[in-house]
Amino acid sequence: MKTSNILNVVLAIALVFICACVAMADNKKGGTTMDNTVINNIMTRSSVRSYTDKKVEQEKIDALVRAAMAAPTAMNKQPWHFIVVTDEQVLGQIAELTPNAAMAVSAPLAIVVCGDLDKAAKDVNKDFWIQDVSAATENILLAAHGLGLGAVWTGTWPRVERCEKIAKLLNLPETMIAFATVVIGYPDGEQHAKDKYLEENVSYNTYGGKMQK
Amino acid sequence: MKTSNILNVVLAIALVFICACVAMADNKKGGTTMDNTVINNIMTRSSVRSYTDKKVEQEKIDALVRAAMAAPTAMNKQPWHFIVVTDEQVLGQIAELTPNAAMAVSAPLAIVVCGDLDKAAKDVNKDFWIQDVSAATENILLAAHGLGLGAVWTGTWPRVERCEKIAKLLNLPETMIAFATVVIGYPDGEQHAKDKYLEENVSYNTYGGKMQK
Repeated sequence: MKTSNILNVVLAIALVFICACVAMADNKKGGTTMDNTVINNIMTRSSVRSYTDKKVEQEKIDALVRAAMAAPTAMNKQPWHFIVVTDEQVLGQIAELTPNAAMAVSAPLAIVVCGDLDKAAKDVNKDFWIQDVSAATENILLAAHGLGLGAVWTGTWPRVERCEKIAKLLNLPETMIAFATVVIGYPDGEQHAKDKYLEENVSYNTYGGKMQK
Repeated sequence: MKTSNILNVVLAIALVFICACVAMADNKKGGTTMDNTVINNIMTRSSVRSYTDKKVEQEKIDALVRAAMAAPTAMNKQPWHFIVVTDEQVLGQIAELTPNAAMAVSAPLAIVVCGDLDKAAKDVNKDFWIQDVSAATENILLAAHGLGLGAVWTGTWPRVERCEKIAKLLNLPETMIAFATVVIGYPDGEQHAKDKYLEENVSYNTYGGKMQK
C-alpha cells in the first residue's frame, strides 16, 4: 500500500514534469518556428569548400534547381539555364579550367548557373539578367544549407576568359553565358558562418541617418 | 488500496503514452523539418505589392538587414550599404521618382540596397559587387517571407537615371550606387507563388545532356 502510494506520487510528478517540458517546447515554437528556421538558415550558411565522399541524392538535386527557378526575375524573364554536373571527369575539368573552383575536383556535384541572353531583355533592361541569375544562385546556396549540404559560389562572369572556357567545356550555345559554378557536397567537418554584421552599414531614411527611437 | 493500484496503472499508461508522443514528434523533426521549412520558404515566396497598415517591428527590420549582410560576397568585400526607409515622406518620394516602386507610397517600409564602390574590388573583379548586392537583396526577400512579411524587389541599377534620382533623394556619397529598392510590409490578402519550374532549363553534364538514370 505504502509502496503503491509512493509510486503514485512519483508517477504523478513525472507526468506533470513531462507535460511542462512539452508545453514549454511548444511555447518556444509558437509562431516563430518558421521565422527562426528561415532566418537561422540564412545566418548560419557559410561557404563550404571541403566535402565527404557521399553522393548528393537526386531528390536533393531536384530541390536545388527548383529553388533556383523560384527566384524573382526582372519582368519575369527567367533568363537562365542550369547544368547539373555529377560526372567526375567534367568536375575535374571545371577545377582545372577555373582554379577558383578547384574544390570541384573532389566534390560530388556542381551546378553551373548560366544566363540565357535569348530570354533576357534586349533593350535598356538587358543587363538585369545578372541580378536574376545572382538571386537564383543565392537560392541554391540557401537551399543546399537547408538540406544539410554545403556549397560555395565560385564566380565566373564577368571574367570573360573563365566564361569562355566553361562554355566550351559544357558545349553552351553562343547566347548562353556560364555565369557561376556552385560547387556542392556534404560538408566535411563542422562549419562556422562569418558574422558580417556592421552597424555602420545601415542608415535610416537618408544616408548617415540614425534610427528614430 | 485498490484505487491506489488503479491510479498507478493509469498514471503509468499516461506516462508511456506521452513519452511515445514526444518521441514521435522528435522523430518527425529529425533531419527533415528544417529542410522543408527552408525549401518551402523559397518555393512559396512571391512578389508582394500590396500591404496592410501594420508597421514592421524594429526587431524584424534588424533581422532583415542582418540577413542581407549574411550573403556571400566575392573576395569577402561586403561592398554594400542599406538605407532603411520608414518615413512616409521619403517612401512617397521613392514612389514618385521611380514609378516601378510606386507601391512604396502605401508601404510601411523600404530598404534601399546600395553598392559601395569604395569597398568593391578595383581591378578586373570590379563588377562583382552587382552579384554581391543581388545576393543580399534575395536574402532580404526570403527573410521577409520567413517573418510573415511580403516584399518586392524593384530594380534601380543599371537604369542610371533611376539610380541618380534615388541617390540624390537619400544623399548618397558619390561612390555609392542605389542598386535596388525592396518594398516591404504585411501582405494585404493571400499570396500565391508562380510555379516557374521548367524541365527544359536543366541539363546534365553538358548542354542538352539528360539525367543519367
